[in-house]
Amino acid sequence: MSITRRVAFQGERGAYSESAAIGFFGPAIEPQPCETFERVFARVLEGECEHGVIPIENTLAGSIHQNYDLLARHNLVITGEYILRVEHALISLPGASIDRIRTVYSHPQALAQCDAYIRTHGWTREATYDTAGSVKLIAELGRLDAAAIAAPRAAATYGMQVLAENIEDDSQNYTRFLVISREPVAPSAPSKTSIVFSMPNAPGALFKALSVFALRDIDLTKIESRPIAGRPFDYWFYLDFAESAYEERGRRALSHLEEITNYLRVFGSYPRAEITPASDDPAAQPSLSGGKASMERMHS
Amino acid sequence: MSITRRVAFQGERGAYSESAAIGFFGPAIEPQPCETFERVFARVLEGECEHGVIPIENTLAGSIHQNYDLLARHNLVITGEYILRVEHALISLPGASIDRIRTVYSHPQALAQCDAYIRTHGWTREATYDTAGSVKLIAELGRLDAAAIAAPRAAATYGMQVLAENIEDDSQNYTRFLVISREPVAPSAPSKTSIVFSMPNAPGALFKALSVFALRDIDLTKIESRPIAGRPFDYWFYLDFAESAYEERGRRALSHLEEITNYLRVFGSYPRAEITPASDDPAAQPSLSGGKASMERMHS
Repeated sequence: MSITRRVAFQGERGAYSESAAIGFFGPAIEPQPCETFERVFARVLEGECEHGVIPIENTLAGSIHQNYDLLARHNLVITGEYILRVEHALISLPGASIDRIRTVYSHPQALAQCDAYIRTHGWTREATYDTAGSVKLIAELGRLDAAAIAAPRAAATYGMQVLAENIEDDSQNYTRFLVISREPVAPSAPSKTSIVFSMPNAPGALFKALSVFALRDIDLTKIESRPIAGRPFDYWFYLDFAESAYEERGRRALSHLEEITNYLRVFGSYPRAEITPASDDPAAQPSLSGGKASMERMHS
Repeated sequence: MSITRRVAFQGERGAYSESAAIGFFGPAIEPQPCETFERVFARVLEGECEHGVIPIENTLAGSIHQNYDLLARHNLVITGEYILRVEHALISLPGASIDRIRTVYSHPQALAQCDAYIRTHGWTREATYDTAGSVKLIAELGRLDAAAIAAPRAAATYGMQVLAENIEDDSQNYTRFLVISREPVAPSAPSKTSIVFSMPNAPGALFKALSVFALRDIDLTKIESRPIAGRPFDYWFYLDFAESAYEERGRRALSHLEEITNYLRVFGSYPRAEITPASDDPAAQPSLSGGKASMERMHS
């Protein structure tokens, strides 16, 4: 008997997070939709799911701080990443046609990302909680004059049809997802490590922190400061670097960093994302390498 | 005849951005609601408004990249900042009472930020585009069994009543707003400068960039990397530092930085935010200093 992986994600079936989970693990998983990100963490922690898949940053919307907070609060580790190109499709009931559509339903962020397309058609917008959820809603309402904006795969999930693909204004819309698990796995190269740290409040503190990577020629792939609530002048720093904590060089950099930070937590080391298809549409591929790779390496 | 300042902001009358505009300039302004952030920039550029007020980062949701993009695309300068504590109020028609409410309308982000409160009451949620807009909607619908979540000032704007204040789960919810104008103004101390730059792709590049501040003991108050669309391995760096570009030390740091970056744009120097009340409620004050100050200074 083969073991099927249960993978928790936030949203309804057909959500972008489900696409990322299938993109990372392949189709032989049992996707486990969860109402909230908190629930995704809980189901992995309690052993109900082997892994969780959570969005951590988007090229247009930035970092998802809520998930950084959940990573900090729970004892799970990052074991993988996946970069998905966000492709919005217009989805309707079978039999509907574009010229009959009057109202379009989706999450406000998705509606905003398809602004030009919606304007051209002069449709009324209805804000909903969630992209895949809006497809489910239209299926339930049975309305032929309404469509939803969501991932193309959401159409198949609810027996609906795709009326138009890639209706987003900006094709450079990527979301980076993290795979979270209970146990760490030493990653194959090329690898990446995600950490959070804070520094004593002293001049040149961040400069010193970055020296531990610069001195070892370790590239950074992300840095972001975030004010610590209720602690004036103190910041969390989110940092990703292009080395594994299991390799000598990465281990030494972290040990050096520990000397000069007052808090350091390693969220995990994992293989760097390689492939990023959001759909099977080959036309969508050319821009992928650029967008994906641009998240991949930043010299420290 | 006194001159009234016209200040553009995104959203309906009563929006949080309007509170920030009034907080920064005082009540003697002519608030000019705009449908989009793009429109805010356009109205200032075209001289229809003297200033615009735009949100740039939120402690829970992070940076608003769309507004960084608009700053980069348009020739306006930052002349001020304002930090607002986001206080969500439950707003209804006069005569409605909490125990009769069945449905609550607001932007999904505001609904999420009041999750515990809504759950306790078991209300149905209706997602809308915008917080103040949901107050306007309920006023138009005339429904006594529905309420909106928005800034307390939105109630007065639409002749509605506040049923409950500070219903947010997390009191550490602050949004930092920027004032944008056509002409720069040399700021009074303590001041701050916001820049964006990119570096040639070489080891230790960011480390070198931070040296120009560390060597001059200039504190940083924000740093964030963002992948450049379609340019593998290249990043924008958003950085705020605690000095004016009009002062010798700031001018020298920028001139030094120019030597080692391949792109550098100064968005503006402006006085650092001092006060941050979102309401007149004195009970809301104690935590302000922490939250406000924590965005104020980060040692480089």
